[in-house]
Amino acid sequence: MKKTYLMTPGPTPVPPQALLAMAEPIIHHRTPEFMAIFKETCDLLKYVFQTQNDVITFTSSGTGAMEAAVCNLLSPGDKAICVQGGKFGERWTELCKAYGITPIVVDAKWGTAVDPKAVEAELKKDASIQAVFTTLCETSTGVLTDIRAIAQATKGHNAVLAVDAISGLGAEEIKTDEWGVDCVVSGSQKGLMIPPGLAFISLSKKAWEKVEKSKCPKYYFSLKKARKAIESTDTPFTPAISLVIALRETLRMMKNEGLDVIFNRHKILALATRKAMEAMGLKLFAPAAPSNGVTAVCAPEGIDGEKLVKHMRDKYGVGIAGGQAELKGKVFRIAHMGYITQTDILTTIAVLGMALAEMGYRGEPGVGVEAAEEVLLEGRDRAPAQP
Amino acid sequence: MKKTYLMTPGPTPVPPQALLAMAEPIIHHRTPEFMAIFKETCDLLKYVFQTQNDVITFTSSGTGAMEAAVCNLLSPGDKAICVQGGKFGERWTELCKAYGITPIVVDAKWGTAVDPKAVEAELKKDASIQAVFTTLCETSTGVLTDIRAIAQATKGHNAVLAVDAISGLGAEEIKTDEWGVDCVVSGSQKGLMIPPGLAFISLSKKAWEKVEKSKCPKYYFSLKKARKAIESTDTPFTPAISLVIALRETLRMMKNEGLDVIFNRHKILALATRKAMEAMGLKLFAPAAPSNGVTAVCAPEGIDGEKLVKHMRDKYGVGIAGGQAELKGKVFRIAHMGYITQTDILTTIAVLGMALAEMGYRGEPGVGVEAAEEVLLEGRDRAPAQP
Repeated sequence: MKKTYLMTPGPTPVPPQALLAMAEPIIHHRTPEFMAIFKETCDLLKYVFQTQNDVITFTSSGTGAMEAAVCNLLSPGDKAICVQGGKFGERWTELCKAYGITPIVVDAKWGTAVDPKAVEAELKKDASIQAVFTTLCETSTGVLTDIRAIAQATKGHNAVLAVDAISGLGAEEIKTDEWGVDCVVSGSQKGLMIPPGLAFISLSKKAWEKVEKSKCPKYYFSLKKARKAIESTDTPFTPAISLVIALRETLRMMKNEGLDVIFNRHKILALATRKAMEAMGLKLFAPAAPSNGVTAVCAPEGIDGEKLVKHMRDKYGVGIAGGQAELKGKVFRIAHMGYITQTDILTTIAVLGMALAEMGYRGEPGVGVEAAEEVLLEGRDRAPAQP
Repeated sequence: MKKTYLMTPGPTPVPPQALLAMAEPIIHHRTPEFMAIFKETCDLLKYVFQTQNDVITFTSSGTGAMEAAVCNLLSPGDKAICVQGGKFGERWTELCKAYGITPIVVDAKWGTAVDPKAVEAELKKDASIQAVFTTLCETSTGVLTDIRAIAQATKGHNAVLAVDAISGLGAEEIKTDEWGVDCVVSGSQKGLMIPPGLAFISLSKKAWEKVEKSKCPKYYFSLKKARKAIESTDTPFTPAISLVIALRETLRMMKNEGLDVIFNRHKILALATRKAMEAMGLKLFAPAAPSNGVTAVCAPEGIDGEKLVKHMRDKYGVGIAGGQAELKGKVFRIAHMGYITQTDILTTIAVLGMALAEMGYRGEPGVGVEAAEEVLLEGRDRAPAQP
């Protein structure tokens, strides 16, 4: 018998109604039936992105939409600030380099958030900077960036702010229009709760003006082509039809639950996870700027993070994530993002306790679950156990 | 009550076992479970692509893999032959222009196939040409290109041959290695029978040598990144997991049926369709070089092709395709590609007869079905009614 519990920061569990929607006979994308679905999906995306601007859908992983941001907003020779501090922050730098754009790297130690003042200082030094690229929730470290403050810093500047919210959208607050975020990028397999394969991007008026001037080569990821198509509820190229249909289901769920309730749910689950880790004597990797989507925890001395992940998966069917790049073996990551309930978090903490004990870690049984329960019970008036 | 019959050249119907595979709980892509699926899928793709080289999978529409061919094989300033003759042939030209590559256009009148000698003549004129881009089956016109002859012409030349087999793979013979086709591009929603969202590309040694020298900017569609990842049964970016899992199902079906049987099935269905059209007094759009994947038929005088498509869809639930670009309203297209049986073809022809009669076309009832039955009965020893 095999039963699995997915607690990874992408893919995240897919609700059964979305899974079943994908099992229905495929329909053609240029039919009134699909166009109605796509129209509704585009409208619901605006709600989740908290924007009045069009949200464009690409068939690709989230990285495709990051590339679209770089190659549509900029031209070779341009300068752009790339906020690093993790594997995905570094991706912005790599993308800029691929297109002959000069990255001005603002780094943060992995596990800490960038100081928005450091970004502001770079912007003040150079009025010709065309863009600031940063990350809402850095999946590799579990760090949350203060996007609102960075948006404040870019507002009066020539540069546009582009945020990789692949891992954050639907888990963390990001008020795109209100804060003045010019470009928000996301993916389908995280807070949006469907399988990977779709990527999204929204652009402000200021960003669209940059798109008009961009000289980087592009075709599949051309935002101009995409904008023209979306005018007639279409995509320039055949979309991943079944994923769009699944997405409508999960976006409807999100609209029903409401963004505020969703963000509160994530906040409580994240807090419960952190308190549990601390009660178990484990060190949080990003204690000062923890995200509500994923918690990175240092593997205790003498225990290999990779082996822990494998043990939990093989023996208990609970899939958490290991460390990426320089953190391989050193951290493990528990996601509490998307279709995740209090029950799932309690399960994961309990199994983590078992696995650690089996691997020789000296901890008191049950203390993690106890600490999590305290948080969850405190929040019982605020958050339903099930979304 | 609503019941639908999909007869479009992409998406094509998805077999229930593939649909159901997508409804299973999502799994993480960096697990032994998914890696085993992906490994099997990659091996089965080699079988279908008729190559010993790796077949690389992108999460994108087929156009993404066409772009990968252009921006990985060439550098700005290079010259490449683009064989046109339809909407998708023209896409190669557009892609080259997007990357600063000079297209040498070899055109064919829409509805006719290019003369391989015309390609050969261009190659002979200029030894510096780096690539020939062409299309196996031009979906917009239903024309089949003689890839074998074009491969013969490129063999001794510096140029590599890249074929858009998005619409042809799994329906038409293409002996990648044996004929010397350097690069074959395909998509998931045609002969491979799953929903859109995956694209594929295979490259010969000669093609990989060009990849090493290419100077076009790229990141998401970088073939070097993809090749490095595939060495450890991985993809550089999160793949469309559920589509890969569905693809394994359909590729297993294809391996079981066998390529020869599959090609013969398509040949018979295409022939039955053409004979039926002629019996009904309808004109084939590409009589001299018809493909086995899709048949384009001229709308009879006084009947709008778009209205016919709509009528068949709305009244009978049978979805065929209209004309694209300059052929809008002038042709309609019946696909017989992928998960399509003799029964489906008979259904479509019967309904087409009904719809045409209702729209005022003077034709004898039943003659189309009669003609198709004759072909199918003749082939009864060669092709099973069900794959």
